[in-house]
Amino acid sequence: MSSSNPLLLPELRQMIASNDAEEMRVFCSALHPASTSEFLSSLEAGEIWTILLEVDATLRAEIFSYFDEDLQVQIIESCPREEIAKLIEEMPSDDRVDVLEEVEQDAVDEILPLMSTEEREDVELLRSYEDDACGAEMSSDFIRLHEGMTVGQAIAEIGAQTHLMETVYYLYVLDDAERLVGIVSAKDLLRRINRQDEPIEGFMKSKGTLVTVDANDRREEAIRLVEKYDFVAIPVVDCDGKMLGVITHDDVLDAAVEELVENAHMSAAVDPLGDETYLDANLWTLARKRFMWLAILLFGAITTAIILKFFNDVTEQIVWLVAFLPMVVSSGGNCGGQAATLVVTALATDEISLDDWKRIAKRETAMGAILGGLMAICGYVNAILIYAFGEGSVSFVDLLIVPLAVFCVVFISNLVGALLPLLFKKMRLDPALMSNPFVAGLSDALGTFVYLWLALLLIMPFAAA
Amino acid sequence: MSSSNPLLLPELRQMIASNDAEEMRVFCSALHPASTSEFLSSLEAGEIWTILLEVDATLRAEIFSYFDEDLQVQIIESCPREEIAKLIEEMPSDDRVDVLEEVEQDAVDEILPLMSTEEREDVELLRSYEDDACGAEMSSDFIRLHEGMTVGQAIAEIGAQTHLMETVYYLYVLDDAERLVGIVSAKDLLRRINRQDEPIEGFMKSKGTLVTVDANDRREEAIRLVEKYDFVAIPVVDCDGKMLGVITHDDVLDAAVEELVENAHMSAAVDPLGDETYLDANLWTLARKRFMWLAILLFGAITTAIILKFFNDVTEQIVWLVAFLPMVVSSGGNCGGQAATLVVTALATDEISLDDWKRIAKRETAMGAILGGLMAICGYVNAILIYAFGEGSVSFVDLLIVPLAVFCVVFISNLVGALLPLLFKKMRLDPALMSNPFVAGLSDALGTFVYLWLALLLIMPFAAA
Repeated sequence: MSSSNPLLLPELRQMIASNDAEEMRVFCSALHPASTSEFLSSLEAGEIWTILLEVDATLRAEIFSYFDEDLQVQIIESCPREEIAKLIEEMPSDDRVDVLEEVEQDAVDEILPLMSTEEREDVELLRSYEDDACGAEMSSDFIRLHEGMTVGQAIAEIGAQTHLMETVYYLYVLDDAERLVGIVSAKDLLRRINRQDEPIEGFMKSKGTLVTVDANDRREEAIRLVEKYDFVAIPVVDCDGKMLGVITHDDVLDAAVEELVENAHMSAAVDPLGDETYLDANLWTLARKRFMWLAILLFGAITTAIILKFFNDVTEQIVWLVAFLPMVVSSGGNCGGQAATLVVTALATDEISLDDWKRIAKRETAMGAILGGLMAICGYVNAILIYAFGEGSVSFVDLLIVPLAVFCVVFISNLVGALLPLLFKKMRLDPALMSNPFVAGLSDALGTFVYLWLALLLIMPFAAA
Repeated sequence: MSSSNPLLLPELRQMIASNDAEEMRVFCSALHPASTSEFLSSLEAGEIWTILLEVDATLRAEIFSYFDEDLQVQIIESCPREEIAKLIEEMPSDDRVDVLEEVEQDAVDEILPLMSTEEREDVELLRSYEDDACGAEMSSDFIRLHEGMTVGQAIAEIGAQTHLMETVYYLYVLDDAERLVGIVSAKDLLRRINRQDEPIEGFMKSKGTLVTVDANDRREEAIRLVEKYDFVAIPVVDCDGKMLGVITHDDVLDAAVEELVENAHMSAAVDPLGDETYLDANLWTLARKRFMWLAILLFGAITTAIILKFFNDVTEQIVWLVAFLPMVVSSGGNCGGQAATLVVTALATDEISLDDWKRIAKRETAMGAILGGLMAICGYVNAILIYAFGEGSVSFVDLLIVPLAVFCVVFISNLVGALLPLLFKKMRLDPALMSNPFVAGLSDALGTFVYLWLALLLIMPFAAA
């Protein structure tokens, strides 16, 4: 999506005022459509439409496709229905479904009947799929071939089939029941340009080498396959093998970025924003999404408060213990958060699977011992520097409680942080829910308990004496 | 990268034992190369090479390109140098540079001289760029045209230029100094298949509509442009406008995923793993990367310990205060972490820029007040439930210190979490360095100070009396 660029605003307004159709046409075709849309975005919806009406329908749809979704919705809702219906017919079939989701229902109900039956049915098919299903991401604009065709006939079809914008790179061979039986790449076709009579069956990819997704598969599956095979587009079929559409490389890139951003948000305990951007999201909606998780995390803090109340006697008698409480618990929280993030991202990018749990457990046991040991040494040095000298000093032996607690808490938090995302995945929950603040909360409660319990066992008997 | 699949292991071993060349050829061409590589991966390097030698060089390179990098390195290091040099000549120019980085220098020094001069120079050019520069990601295999060509001549060039694997979708028009002057899309060429004498100049994209990256630009720039314009490939030029190569959609997808995973790791205070995966990374290397940040974060904990020592008198006299210390600081840490993650991901996906800082500050001031207020109410309810009744109860008025501190800490941490990534960006540091544990550490120290200082001001005077 492009942002707006007010650089040419006065010139554009002038152009509209003077109603110079030729100049508008030249302006719209001089730059890449993405740049044209950037300049136009600084105008009002009505002004933009005045300019766009001067260019041909294909370019108009292309420029329109680069506007921010908010602006697209505004134009669709405010401009003449008949012209908008034509615009929507020209749009890539996946994009128009996305934007129509945001347009008010009254406007949609008026626009859809003005579209051709075929295009309207296409919109309705795509709208019938779940938001994160492959069917909702696909475009139904692709080039169809028949099995018996030759190179020459295939090339002629490219000219004949007009809605080919998204997928000229692959041509799809369907049988009479519209089932996908082969894929011809534009590359292979171009290489055979001088052998027009060669049948496509000889070089098309067929049966064993076809890779498809089901329209009801989650879009992660399409991302995974496109990453694995480096496809420009992947075909979407229904349960009978009938070909419904294609998901193209640009949609996969957008979806992959969206998935990873959602993961990052969940890892920081923010409910995913969905289609909204950070700055455009409604303040109250965002506050609700953030508060929901903060409130859940508060339960961890309550547990910690109760543990601290329970150990009241210990902290009352050995006041210096309190100084190192944040160090003990945050060491565990930071280390557990690292482990959780490493496992969550490795799961998200298919580097590891549930079957690797034993290897991960073994690895993180060793890692916890190493990091726990190193952190314990640091913790002991700090404890000595802060409390072993001067007024109210504490003995070196008593201070050993700090490294002991740090080691235990780091070791346990690290293992818990690494394994809980796997458990969540096993339970078919999103592993990213095992968010870092959640790990930190667990490790606050756990760390507080371990630290004060060790003190109760090891120091209190002597302190009381 | 594909993983290994041992399903056909016995059959493959049998095939090698019986030395059945025809069967090996059939096996290698029956499936998609990515799937073939998955089955082959379960064999030893030497066995794989025996099978691959039976297929033609192009398919061999394609199957090879889908192996894990570790296996690629193993094969390159262990198989006959002359054959390997030929294999590397056939590989996409960006991929071979990546894998040669990992091969031991002795082997590289022996292999490079066996390659053709042209291919060797190409390897050396790509190796001269920084790891995260566009020049290191690009492939120098693209189809070159001249300005005066016709449709027919352009189509003939596709057949003539053999190394066109990566970029048949665009053809690049260069002038005599090899500067990029136009781009012809395969789509536009195919549509004009029956007008072979039409000059390409009439329909190629030229001057104002060309979008390129500089070889020294960081790869984020290529990702941004491909996301914006939905390109299948973007041309890479040097400072004189000379065309050096292209970055293709699959490389952009891989790079975008890698960038976001690096971001996620940094946000959890893990130094990026680079090319290594979580399970393959050396335990000690990973331990070092994790410990480095844990040690830095420890300084936050030391500050907190010193603050707590400073307020010793307060916690000694009003022991119940300690119970709510974790709640106060973790509320701030969680809220600040949310704000930091939202801003860091919005920066990474170009939703916001530095110029938006005023809007962000205003927004997060309101957000901090809302969330601070809500969390304060929750905190007060908890404080009352835990400490207002039964033995050692505390007055409702004294407990007001808890919501007061929660509000201040949440408000400040939220604003700091949102603005520090922007400050880091302004200082040309990576905003993701403003990691969530770092925000949590700041908010531990800050929260502890605010909480105990408020207690010193508001409760101590009366407690002492």
